[in-house]
Amino acid sequence: MRLYTYFRSSAAYRVRIALNLKGLDWSPVAVHLVRSGGEQHLPDYRALNPAGLVPALEDGGHVLTQSLAIMEYLDETHPAPPLLPADALGRARVRAIAQSIACDIHPINNLRVLQYLTRELGASDEQKNAWYRHWVTQGLAALEQMLAGHPDTASFCHGDTPTLADCCLVPQVFNARRFGCDLGAMPVIQRIAERCEALEAFRLAAPQQQADAEH
Amino acid sequence: MRLYTYFRSSAAYRVRIALNLKGLDWSPVAVHLVRSGGEQHLPDYRALNPAGLVPALEDGGHVLTQSLAIMEYLDETHPAPPLLPADALGRARVRAIAQSIACDIHPINNLRVLQYLTRELGASDEQKNAWYRHWVTQGLAALEQMLAGHPDTASFCHGDTPTLADCCLVPQVFNARRFGCDLGAMPVIQRIAERCEALEAFRLAAPQQQADAEH
Repeated sequence: MRLYTYFRSSAAYRVRIALNLKGLDWSPVAVHLVRSGGEQHLPDYRALNPAGLVPALEDGGHVLTQSLAIMEYLDETHPAPPLLPADALGRARVRAIAQSIACDIHPINNLRVLQYLTRELGASDEQKNAWYRHWVTQGLAALEQMLAGHPDTASFCHGDTPTLADCCLVPQVFNARRFGCDLGAMPVIQRIAERCEALEAFRLAAPQQQADAEH
Repeated sequence: MRLYTYFRSSAAYRVRIALNLKGLDWSPVAVHLVRSGGEQHLPDYRALNPAGLVPALEDGGHVLTQSLAIMEYLDETHPAPPLLPADALGRARVRAIAQSIACDIHPINNLRVLQYLTRELGASDEQKNAWYRHWVTQGLAALEQMLAGHPDTASFCHGDTPTLADCCLVPQVFNARRFGCDLGAMPVIQRIAERCEALEAFRLAAPQQQADAEH
């Protein structure tokens, strides 16, 4: 399998974690989201993924897009270890946690959105950073409440093994720290993120561990 | 089942379609997203869904959130008619189409984001509408390419029965029309949306058909 990835892309980071948790053999193809006006916009990459976003996964000649869809595909085609619980309610909860990040937080703070704020609306750096922190803080505060009050929250977001929810949480926490968001009021999120980051599958998926990382 | 819904919420609209396609018995609980500063922010609703977003589904005393997670749950607990194809690649494609709307287009144009643009960044109505049309047009153009070039695109986004992809497509097209986006270059999307809208399950889920609709 080949993963089209950018070290700092949080959606690619999710899939890297899932690939590692599954113990799959994969190789990265770096797509630099900033250099040359964004390599994701080049015709060759657009032919693979018309949306011009990373990640994309190539598996047996097929190209898959959208990080959550890719992770569900990996879970269906390589069931062990499972990244979703066995019961429908548990699956719904894990997916809801994953989507509270992948739909409610991350898209609003994506690179292209921040670029639009700056270029089209003339937002200052200060306004851009306030925007970023606003959505992360609001979104993670809601997630903290979802996690803190629920009996299925354990070592990880749902139970004692990592799920899709944790694959989404860790990259979002990474971004939150990078932009200086205050996570002080989110002890459950911090505890789970640290527990995940102690695992090799998460550690090796981190931005700074990637071949295309810039330090 | 009780669905916490707002007639114009596109995420609630998706779930209304799925409930109708499954032929399930459900009743709406209206949450007005604008009146009284937004009823989704009231303590009673926040206790159900800490994110303060619609929809939420109550089923047998359990509360589920996130429209895509709710639809997957409905598909698992009420398998007929299926809203996902049987094969892993097909499922990945349907989920990717659904997420290209639910992750790449809709969150950036959500009410709370538009309110932030106006209130915090002082965007004019013209700038707000340009923002809206920018993300819809860019996102749907990419989706048109995904659909137009693929052998599995048929009467619906994937094959000849509606899937989760169609449940997401129709509300997004509804919004696009409402904001005057030009869909002229998207014949496949238009054809599929019209095919869907001819079905009762879609028709009865439309904003103007809801008990809380404002005309």
